[in-house]
Amino acid sequence: MRDNSQQEREQVIYGTRAIIEAVNSGKEFDRLFVQKNINNELSSELFSLLRKHDISFSRVPIEKLNRITRKNHQGVIGFISPISYSSLDNIISSAYEAGESPFILVLDRITDVRNFGAICRTAECAGVHGIVVPDKGSAQINSDAIKTSAGALNHISVCREKNLESTIKFLQNNGLFVIACTEKTDVPIYNCDLNHPIAIIVGSEENGISNELIRKADALGKLPIQGKISSLNVSVAAGVLMYEVVRQRGL
Amino acid sequence: MRDNSQQEREQVIYGTRAIIEAVNSGKEFDRLFVQKNINNELSSELFSLLRKHDISFSRVPIEKLNRITRKNHQGVIGFISPISYSSLDNIISSAYEAGESPFILVLDRITDVRNFGAICRTAECAGVHGIVVPDKGSAQINSDAIKTSAGALNHISVCREKNLESTIKFLQNNGLFVIACTEKTDVPIYNCDLNHPIAIIVGSEENGISNELIRKADALGKLPIQGKISSLNVSVAAGVLMYEVVRQRGL
Repeated sequence: MRDNSQQEREQVIYGTRAIIEAVNSGKEFDRLFVQKNINNELSSELFSLLRKHDISFSRVPIEKLNRITRKNHQGVIGFISPISYSSLDNIISSAYEAGESPFILVLDRITDVRNFGAICRTAECAGVHGIVVPDKGSAQINSDAIKTSAGALNHISVCREKNLESTIKFLQNNGLFVIACTEKTDVPIYNCDLNHPIAIIVGSEENGISNELIRKADALGKLPIQGKISSLNVSVAAGVLMYEVVRQRGL
Repeated sequence: MRDNSQQEREQVIYGTRAIIEAVNSGKEFDRLFVQKNINNELSSELFSLLRKHDISFSRVPIEKLNRITRKNHQGVIGFISPISYSSLDNIISSAYEAGESPFILVLDRITDVRNFGAICRTAECAGVHGIVVPDKGSAQINSDAIKTSAGALNHISVCREKNLESTIKFLQNNGLFVIACTEKTDVPIYNCDLNHPIAIIVGSEENGISNELIRKADALGKLPIQGKISSLNVSVAAGVLMYEVVRQRGL
């Protein structure tokens, strides 16, 4: 269990009424947990509010909620996000309007908070316009993530998307070339032309990029790996890939 | 203070006689601390043995030793290195003999154990022949370093050198082109020709590469950085640099 001071810094909100008020005041949640099978008048009000604002939440057993806090959570616990999320549409439009070639990074199930923070740090330095994460199954954006990012998370745009497959389609419809970085190809990333509007997909160290996303990508590229351990840290690999875009673009 | 189990895993040896025996049995120390002003018959025997084997040690106040262990250390504590160090001369000769173009990474005062481990992991994947660290003022090579390296430290050659300025001279005399990666230049690393026997120097996040080493390098190169935080993590920066060598060499 995480200690209380840490939780307070990250603004944990519990109790149905408190969550309803947080939503109404425009707060964004990094995580929202609702007890399975909860069913009372106030929870109905909460559910219709979450639907109205299209806010994702996870149904969890009460034991999970009890592990987060011993206080009276009434079956609902939310972690307020320390950052504001951006709209992918806006990011891409702004880049085009500024006469820049959009550069988007898509993170498929990067769950390690430190790797996530480190990737955001590099992205901010490499001129990435926005980072896309799935709204579930990604690293929690908490004080550790911000710290590991060296504060970059306060400057770079992060978008949460419900469905990364739809996101890829959206990126392609907006003129971006989508490259999946995976070992499931023999083509070195250096042979890919990255000097146009581009989105790079990077997957988790454990599972790589999901097959659905690999199928939807316009091209696949890999980093050549020698040696015995044959495994790069994902934040280093992402850094090499982002800087290959920087190099090809001559930024 | 580190806990005892951790210390035992890393094989801390204390007591003058025990250290003498460790040296005589060929063990290598990652760190060797000797109390300031120590002066007895056994310590004279130790000092002459250390001189004979050219083993570095640090003179420290007794308080430092007492913080490491509460046991009777008699003014001498050594941390057995979990890896065997290599000779730079051998590494370079072996690379040439194998028909390969030597690729050496020099780490100037990288003190963070995790960054050091992460760099070693990337180096092993990028085909680096050897990593050079100064024998003082570098990250301790302990179980955390090995873990962060994903085991790469068990495979890649690491050399400890007393004086990095002499090391650079040695590298140059052996036909290597020495590039210092520093912000103190306007030349992007992409403009540097890395497709020959090469040594790359990377410095600490805090202080960069020392001016003495920058002056001795054959060329300087930088990674272009945009954005507000303007600071790459050193293990990511080192990864980008190593992979630029990989790219240029077409490995």
